[in-house]
Amino acid sequence: MVNVAVLGYGTVGSGVFDVLVKNHDSIAKKIGDDIKVKYVLDLREFPGDPVESVLVHDFDTIINDPEIDIVAEAMGGLDPAYTFAKRTLEAGKNYCTSNKELVAMYGPELLELAKSKGKNFLFEASVGGGIPIIRPLNQSLTADDITEITGILNGTTNFILTKMDKEGLAFEDVLKEAQELGYAEKDPTADVEGYDACRKIAILSSLAYGLHVNFEDIYTEGITKITALDFKYASKLGLSIKLFGKSKKIDGKCYAMVAPFMISTESPLYCVNGVMNGILVNGEVIGDIMFYGSGAGKYPTASAVVADIVDEAKHLNKHIMSLWSSKKLELEDIKSNRCKFFVRVSGDAASRLDAVEEAFGKITPVTLDEVNGEFAFITEVISEADYEAAAQKVDGILQRIRVEA
Amino acid sequence: MVNVAVLGYGTVGSGVFDVLVKNHDSIAKKIGDDIKVKYVLDLREFPGDPVESVLVHDFDTIINDPEIDIVAEAMGGLDPAYTFAKRTLEAGKNYCTSNKELVAMYGPELLELAKSKGKNFLFEASVGGGIPIIRPLNQSLTADDITEITGILNGTTNFILTKMDKEGLAFEDVLKEAQELGYAEKDPTADVEGYDACRKIAILSSLAYGLHVNFEDIYTEGITKITALDFKYASKLGLSIKLFGKSKKIDGKCYAMVAPFMISTESPLYCVNGVMNGILVNGEVIGDIMFYGSGAGKYPTASAVVADIVDEAKHLNKHIMSLWSSKKLELEDIKSNRCKFFVRVSGDAASRLDAVEEAFGKITPVTLDEVNGEFAFITEVISEADYEAAAQKVDGILQRIRVEA
Repeated sequence: MVNVAVLGYGTVGSGVFDVLVKNHDSIAKKIGDDIKVKYVLDLREFPGDPVESVLVHDFDTIINDPEIDIVAEAMGGLDPAYTFAKRTLEAGKNYCTSNKELVAMYGPELLELAKSKGKNFLFEASVGGGIPIIRPLNQSLTADDITEITGILNGTTNFILTKMDKEGLAFEDVLKEAQELGYAEKDPTADVEGYDACRKIAILSSLAYGLHVNFEDIYTEGITKITALDFKYASKLGLSIKLFGKSKKIDGKCYAMVAPFMISTESPLYCVNGVMNGILVNGEVIGDIMFYGSGAGKYPTASAVVADIVDEAKHLNKHIMSLWSSKKLELEDIKSNRCKFFVRVSGDAASRLDAVEEAFGKITPVTLDEVNGEFAFITEVISEADYEAAAQKVDGILQRIRVEA
Repeated sequence: MVNVAVLGYGTVGSGVFDVLVKNHDSIAKKIGDDIKVKYVLDLREFPGDPVESVLVHDFDTIINDPEIDIVAEAMGGLDPAYTFAKRTLEAGKNYCTSNKELVAMYGPELLELAKSKGKNFLFEASVGGGIPIIRPLNQSLTADDITEITGILNGTTNFILTKMDKEGLAFEDVLKEAQELGYAEKDPTADVEGYDACRKIAILSSLAYGLHVNFEDIYTEGITKITALDFKYASKLGLSIKLFGKSKKIDGKCYAMVAPFMISTESPLYCVNGVMNGILVNGEVIGDIMFYGSGAGKYPTASAVVADIVDEAKHLNKHIMSLWSSKKLELEDIKSNRCKFFVRVSGDAASRLDAVEEAFGKITPVTLDEVNGEFAFITEVISEADYEAAAQKVDGILQRIRVEA
């Protein structure tokens, strides 16, 4: 018998409870042991809900019960999750979580604490919801050297960008619709400004490169300046626009950023649409692999937490080693990152070409039939610093979007 | 120190050797133990190759050495791989393999033998080359009920179909090019007739549903009848054509088949192009997830074998339970499978409409400007038996391709 406590009976916590109860027999059959939810912690009451029989309001009840093997947390935020995580591991119990803020901020500390106790700190659901990505990064790619990760990591922004692409709508209108559908929060800042994707790419990069990537060091740019017109140009160029969390290693240097990127319709990430997430990983040996699925949602996220619970149940006293040292990975200044840039400039192409080419070098202007008074072009691969320097010399730049080479 | 023997120094075996030697230190650091290739078995000599120092020609050398913990086989075919696998597990050693024929035919027997010995039989590389798919099916989806698997499982046929799609070429011409590029064998039968995909979907389905799916029971149809014209129609309809290995559970019944399918450009599998593979899995809890990557190739495949070696090194004496009983899963007769059908009919739409609609019900004819003397349509969702019955009543059917609803 493996005893589990679930912290938080919100969307994900109740999903975890549901899955463990509903699939109890098949899980028991598959792992050869009985997983029982002994407690669910929440400050609220849930009259009439099946959880009532196991509901507790005091974490001490859980931490003081020697029978509890695994604590699964679906609370979000740093406080009190960080305290609960520390106390759980210090008490010699296993911990798993869907809480990306906790993992991004305290991942290495909690991993080291778990390791010192011969216990586990797992967090599959903290990135990419239901998509199995943490476990493969930790296992299947163990023997490999990961050189690049490119992720569509936020369902809200991907829903918005997909709709703008397919239906030619303005950002503000689609955001409103996303809020009405429950795909965006009342305060959508964390999503649309890229902060959510930032924490997730920090976690993935830390795991991939084995050192701690501080999300606060990652250049982050959201989607609020993307317009319907940008998508029209993209379409003409055989491209689309996605919000990427990216990190890459080149010659021992590591770059990480969150920003909108124009991508080719040939990229496997082009087909990651709506609220779905996709994470493209490049390894020296394995080449390109991509993981695709629901990045959020009650049951997809719950399934990842349950997978962690099952993994911990199979390894109650064995630290399933994770490659994430607390030593900090110094990121390169984004100024030296190199890519192409899509640029929109006001004015008429013929008359402005000389001035633009003096700054950017030879370009091929692109215009849209339905739009007068501006044109666009894509630069060669240049550094961010070179882009900034060239852009200083040209008046009337209306838009700048990075382009995945 | 964990001692490994590699069976076969062909493309994959030499890749495994390379990776274990080249990445020796980083693997040792990540898993906390030293993995050493003690022997490589091959009948051939390799003068001047680094393998010489560990090359042996007799399997007995390996099986009789008590120091050998893991045997990794990259030989292909049933004989002598089956004998080697049995002898290895009976001798209390772990076995891993990239050999899909072995796994499709003897998977359940070898899994049970491994389990009885407290050892492991792993086979990540047997399906989807480097793509982590076996491990996620066995772990991350443990708590879930898998209802459908749809895979682009064969790089040769996907390369051919992608080229036919993008460049409007004929099957025979692209096959020839594929052979010249090394993407298709001199005798391409196993690939183009779907037999390779058949074994792979049998393995995936067995793992997903927990019972043995016999690949010999799976309806298999290859791509040899797909034409450039079919792709023109597909394009006009906003579709493409892929070779799928599919299995699904509906109301407790299980269907499996290998066949070309027309798919929407909205499907995530639409973006799986060239030699890449993609496996879309639907779970009751997790929803849709997809795994994408190189289905073949020296280093991608080797990386999956090395991942198995590492997993076995971490679990030398613990059977990592796999959900595959030797009890046979009875597949439903394909006649009751239901889908849409794309049909091409000779003649003029206006004059033949009545006859076609009498057999198939109301249809919307589709014609191509550049083609006279035929038209096409897509049926509603009907059973294979209903399709056959309707097709009997209509002369001049030129083509029938299933359509993913």
